[in-house]
Amino acid sequence: MNGTGGQPVSPPEAVRWAADGGVDILDQTLLPETERRLVLWSADEMIEAIRALRVRGAPAIGIAAAMALAVEAVQHVDLVAGAFAAAVSDAANRLSAARPTAVNLAWAIHRAMNAIDAGSTNVQAIEALHREASRILDEDRAMCRRIGELGVSLLPDGARVLTQCNAGALATGGIGTALAPVYVAAERGHAVEVWAPETRPLLQGSRITAWELERAGVPVTVLTDSAVAALLGQSKIDLVIVGADRIAANGDVANKVGTYALALLARAHDVPFYVAAPTSTLDAGTPTGAGIPIEMRDPDEIRRGFGRLTAPAAVRVFSPAFDVTPAALITAIITERGILRPPFGDAVGLQVRDSERERERP
Amino acid sequence: MNGTGGQPVSPPEAVRWAADGGVDILDQTLLPETERRLVLWSADEMIEAIRALRVRGAPAIGIAAAMALAVEAVQHVDLVAGAFAAAVSDAANRLSAARPTAVNLAWAIHRAMNAIDAGSTNVQAIEALHREASRILDEDRAMCRRIGELGVSLLPDGARVLTQCNAGALATGGIGTALAPVYVAAERGHAVEVWAPETRPLLQGSRITAWELERAGVPVTVLTDSAVAALLGQSKIDLVIVGADRIAANGDVANKVGTYALALLARAHDVPFYVAAPTSTLDAGTPTGAGIPIEMRDPDEIRRGFGRLTAPAAVRVFSPAFDVTPAALITAIITERGILRPPFGDAVGLQVRDSERERERP
Repeated sequence: MNGTGGQPVSPPEAVRWAADGGVDILDQTLLPETERRLVLWSADEMIEAIRALRVRGAPAIGIAAAMALAVEAVQHVDLVAGAFAAAVSDAANRLSAARPTAVNLAWAIHRAMNAIDAGSTNVQAIEALHREASRILDEDRAMCRRIGELGVSLLPDGARVLTQCNAGALATGGIGTALAPVYVAAERGHAVEVWAPETRPLLQGSRITAWELERAGVPVTVLTDSAVAALLGQSKIDLVIVGADRIAANGDVANKVGTYALALLARAHDVPFYVAAPTSTLDAGTPTGAGIPIEMRDPDEIRRGFGRLTAPAAVRVFSPAFDVTPAALITAIITERGILRPPFGDAVGLQVRDSERERERP
Repeated sequence: MNGTGGQPVSPPEAVRWAADGGVDILDQTLLPETERRLVLWSADEMIEAIRALRVRGAPAIGIAAAMALAVEAVQHVDLVAGAFAAAVSDAANRLSAARPTAVNLAWAIHRAMNAIDAGSTNVQAIEALHREASRILDEDRAMCRRIGELGVSLLPDGARVLTQCNAGALATGGIGTALAPVYVAAERGHAVEVWAPETRPLLQGSRITAWELERAGVPVTVLTDSAVAALLGQSKIDLVIVGADRIAANGDVANKVGTYALALLARAHDVPFYVAAPTSTLDAGTPTGAGIPIEMRDPDEIRRGFGRLTAPAAVRVFSPAFDVTPAALITAIITERGILRPPFGDAVGLQVRDSERERERP
């Protein structure tokens, strides 16, 4: 029995509707010092929030962007139909492009836009956008729960889980992806603990993962990214679970930088390496990881970490936001539809079936 | 031809005699924001400086401690012989224990104490301590140069070298250990560049390695510790060279945490992995890496990085200062006496010959 006493966990929500109709997000850049929520009223405000990582995590930014599109559309309700459509379409394009790596962002916006019936009035279109955004949020919550329920079977009692960055509640609309099996284990009264590398440059591991797990009563230990090998070498880890920003058709996974190192180090120590992600993260249109665009971060995150000069002021910096873990290093991918084992052709199958279903919808 | 234009490099000195007889160190905790030198006058001041990492790097702390012992002894010159010997011996013990992992510290203090002839006066003992400390400094400078001259043969033209932490000039009395071959290549007008992981928690890679290389005109790129695998995956590195805090008799190497990860990741990408260290770092008395004590760092370096709350205030932290890289992952060890290839029995041989020579000294 661990700290949650086998009670349901209710981690804080990354994104939700505000009572007055705006999009309410937890500003994750301020954690753990300050817990402040913001209510956003436009696509531009959301684009800023996504770029600044106030809201982050592939599923959460998809949800947040779809919600922001609905809120943005309200502002244009009085335009003539053509101008309204153009304004919404422009906002959709800009939201889709706010970050390049996560496929969920474009997926959610595409889905929201497809929910608008041809010939609908402005008000009908706005209602459709709101309805679809709420549906994406609800489905994401259910998806997280399902990943947790499937993934918990992979955790031995007393499981010591290593993760990277934050693929927890604060990266999704529900109880997370990588952390969902951990939360379900805790709810069921199983002993479970998490080891969270801090995840430079923005420290989502120490600032966010450790914070949300502590709030939920799950034991957590923070370490530097460079201490992961020492930890694995001391046989302190039973399994690794990470999230994903995009999964190519062959099973290659783009995720927060450092994930590829974890996969190689886990392999070297015979520790299983799992990826937990919704099927919306599967990208049948990208054959291999080589085709996934990798966003580079601002060099000053390294040169001026935390407001101080932490490197020579103009030194050259290599700071990819993500890396690509080859499918060959992945033990299994935990999705809401099942646990996929290699070869990951199944992943493509799931995605293709999704696309077909969407086309068949009336 | 690179930035140094083939001219001799003269990196800043980590430790030297002050004109008025104190021990002059560069306070490395303030880099790169501020370049401030401190003059220390006692063993206690030096112990504080070593613990706070104002002076750091296995060879440099050995030199600095031996110099501080000489300076401390001066303060006790007026004591009767027995009390003088006790005071010096007490200071020697405390200096030896200032940090547990690096063997050079105990080695340098032991050597300084052995330089005092039985029956010498206080003044003669003080002179012997000064002479021996200066000799350790001079030998270290020559050792660095020799490691550079031997190691440069391992660098292809245009070499892209990955290192960890700082095993450069600021870790030694000369041009460094891991960076010595880089400086010699630059002096000879060969193209060479260094990739420096920032090395959390104290950022010696971004703050110190990048700073001293920039000052010497050698191209350098900084990256987070977690980006190393992505870098290796993109074939951007020709070889890894790191320093060592202690080398066990079987060739296992204790060095700054993250080194073991670099060794495993280098192996996974078929990149050679070299350790550069003086033979004083070889510890014949420790059969394998399992016997090397690993110092744990203050958890608040992780929880309150850079003065801000970077993790929950009381979260559990795993922060070893060092890790152990098994000999099997090491391509070669570059010492001032030659490049050792596995199996590393030779390493023990060198150390044993050292001990014998010392015993034979009149």
